[in-house]
Amino acid sequence: MQDKKYLMIPGPTPVPPAVVAAMSRPMIGHRSGDFAVLYQRLEEKIKKVFQTENEVFILTHSGTGGMEAAIANVINPGDEVLALITGNFGERFANIAKAYGAKVEEVNFGWGKDVDLNIVAGKLAQKEYKAVLATQNETSTGVLNDIAGIGALIAKTPALLLVDGVSGVGGIEVKTDAWHIDMLITSSQKAFMLPPGLAMVSVSPKAWEVVNQNKAPRFYFSLPEAKKSLAKWNSAFTPNVSLFMGLEAALDMMLAEGLPEVYARHKRLAKATRAAVRALGLDLLTDDHCASPTVTAILSSGGFEVEELRKVLRQEFGVTFAGGQGTLKGKIFRIAHMGFADKMDIIIAIGALEMALARLRYPLTPGAGIGAAQEIFLKGEI
Amino acid sequence: MQDKKYLMIPGPTPVPPAVVAAMSRPMIGHRSGDFAVLYQRLEEKIKKVFQTENEVFILTHSGTGGMEAAIANVINPGDEVLALITGNFGERFANIAKAYGAKVEEVNFGWGKDVDLNIVAGKLAQKEYKAVLATQNETSTGVLNDIAGIGALIAKTPALLLVDGVSGVGGIEVKTDAWHIDMLITSSQKAFMLPPGLAMVSVSPKAWEVVNQNKAPRFYFSLPEAKKSLAKWNSAFTPNVSLFMGLEAALDMMLAEGLPEVYARHKRLAKATRAAVRALGLDLLTDDHCASPTVTAILSSGGFEVEELRKVLRQEFGVTFAGGQGTLKGKIFRIAHMGFADKMDIIIAIGALEMALARLRYPLTPGAGIGAAQEIFLKGEI
Repeated sequence: MQDKKYLMIPGPTPVPPAVVAAMSRPMIGHRSGDFAVLYQRLEEKIKKVFQTENEVFILTHSGTGGMEAAIANVINPGDEVLALITGNFGERFANIAKAYGAKVEEVNFGWGKDVDLNIVAGKLAQKEYKAVLATQNETSTGVLNDIAGIGALIAKTPALLLVDGVSGVGGIEVKTDAWHIDMLITSSQKAFMLPPGLAMVSVSPKAWEVVNQNKAPRFYFSLPEAKKSLAKWNSAFTPNVSLFMGLEAALDMMLAEGLPEVYARHKRLAKATRAAVRALGLDLLTDDHCASPTVTAILSSGGFEVEELRKVLRQEFGVTFAGGQGTLKGKIFRIAHMGFADKMDIIIAIGALEMALARLRYPLTPGAGIGAAQEIFLKGEI
Repeated sequence: MQDKKYLMIPGPTPVPPAVVAAMSRPMIGHRSGDFAVLYQRLEEKIKKVFQTENEVFILTHSGTGGMEAAIANVINPGDEVLALITGNFGERFANIAKAYGAKVEEVNFGWGKDVDLNIVAGKLAQKEYKAVLATQNETSTGVLNDIAGIGALIAKTPALLLVDGVSGVGGIEVKTDAWHIDMLITSSQKAFMLPPGLAMVSVSPKAWEVVNQNKAPRFYFSLPEAKKSLAKWNSAFTPNVSLFMGLEAALDMMLAEGLPEVYARHKRLAKATRAAVRALGLDLLTDDHCASPTVTAILSSGGFEVEELRKVLRQEFGVTFAGGQGTLKGKIFRIAHMGFADKMDIIIAIGALEMALARLRYPLTPGAGIGAAQEIFLKGEI
């Protein structure tokens, strides 16, 4: 049925009606006083999500643009960079650093595993790095990395910690200042419940010392230019005004719910999803200790073709799950429970999954997955 | 969570984004050419849903206003009226006729039962009625009446058949002309997937003979005035322009899906709901033979308090079911699957119902209801 579509991919995520309504407001000029007070309010609110005293820049490009803005303002050719890789987006971060001429040492912890702090400590003991690249929440595998642990190690060194928080920030607690994150990058179309088009980047005092001396070519991505504009509550270049309006509605929703409850909700949805998947006899890609609160990866286990499953889900039930990326293509599917998602979305996801598996003659007890998810919800566990 | 609300009452029903978008278009004047071509297009499209060659008036008031428009244009004080009552809205129709001075003979078939054609035939043999009032789909009980059968009996008499199709038309097939319905009344906020505010009324040639001679006071409800305006593709009084725009989007969705599939979808949702309810050991108010495709009434069976159940559903799961009306208050709850509803809405309804019942310590196997609904969907039965 038209408009009965359930988008359960790790971004873009569904946009709440309140955010759509905010984005439908009349256009305003971005050099106006109205825009300045909007940006000022946004800055106050987004700092609560970032848990930072640093400036947070709201930039008009995707999350990858945010990662490039971080690199372009920090890296000069020949700089030593340590890349902590747990999947596709860890690789992307390393590739951006390479594009800017960095000497990147890539440590790949395996797709589905999290960063091993002992290995990081060992690397930091051997060499002085300009920057360390880490992924808070690896979208491609559903792995949550221990950014607090990584940050504690790096704080003792001259290296900057740049964190890709694209699919985590807003859904998973992050303490930018307490965890010594020098640059935290996220974007609009994940836990912030907005359409794609904005990136948010925070910059620590330690990072500014590097940024201000950086000689790499940068214009649209220039953070010093962004800083000059932000001092006047403005953006250096034309911002996506409607998304700024929508961002305030989204932040207002999150703050009204209460950030602790927002984070608890995501954990609860992940836990229910994992319980349901196990009850159906399917295998999870990741261990519980590093399970992402925003996206869950499930192995095909050979019982069915992943792409066939996704096709049935999409065509017959209107439900879209993500497939695997890179080496995991065809081996996993991913259910996002990110942003504008609550209990009933998990009921839909598992209800549809059960029916699609039954279509593919995978043996299961109808309702068994739902029952396991319900149990988590009834216990109110997080 | 804000905006995660699931409205499953028999009207108003959820409004699809495509309809919301259409209703957000800029206002136009109702005496403009733009409005005239809109009304002309609406008339062509709505006649397909009504299956009629009669004019269908789109009037700016609720469904009750539509019922009153029918009565006000047909009934003079002292007129003999036969009211076929199967619940709250059958009683309302009778009360409107009484308000206009009719001598109303009320035949109450019992709340939860459908109209018995033998009794109707007997009544028609005894007396000549000015009008017979019937309810296509009794919202208060989830009973579907046999309008084709009633119409065949009345067509042989001078009586007019006035049918309240408020919670049926658009979700349940109705053949206005083939079934000899003289006036069919429906409204916007049920299967038509719109906010409340519009009623639609069709008038047969047999009805016009009565309407044109009627002497009851009528101004806003005057169908002769509406007819004069419709000849110029206009309305006698200021129409709800935004709802007219939304109605076209809703009709376009229904016609694109195909009316046979729209009707099959509603039957399938009712069947899945009923199977799920039975699997949970609950009792249905109505027999299968007269089960409404758009709303299902479930008995509390003494295992729980209906109002307590509805409270848990609303507060903990964001799901709103309807309670009982009149004599059934506190004894039943009703799940609507009407208009903008498809498989996943039933999965949500039953998933939430199971959890709420578990909260109230009603003994059940988690997921058992969902499994029964899934079986219906997988079979594709209607």
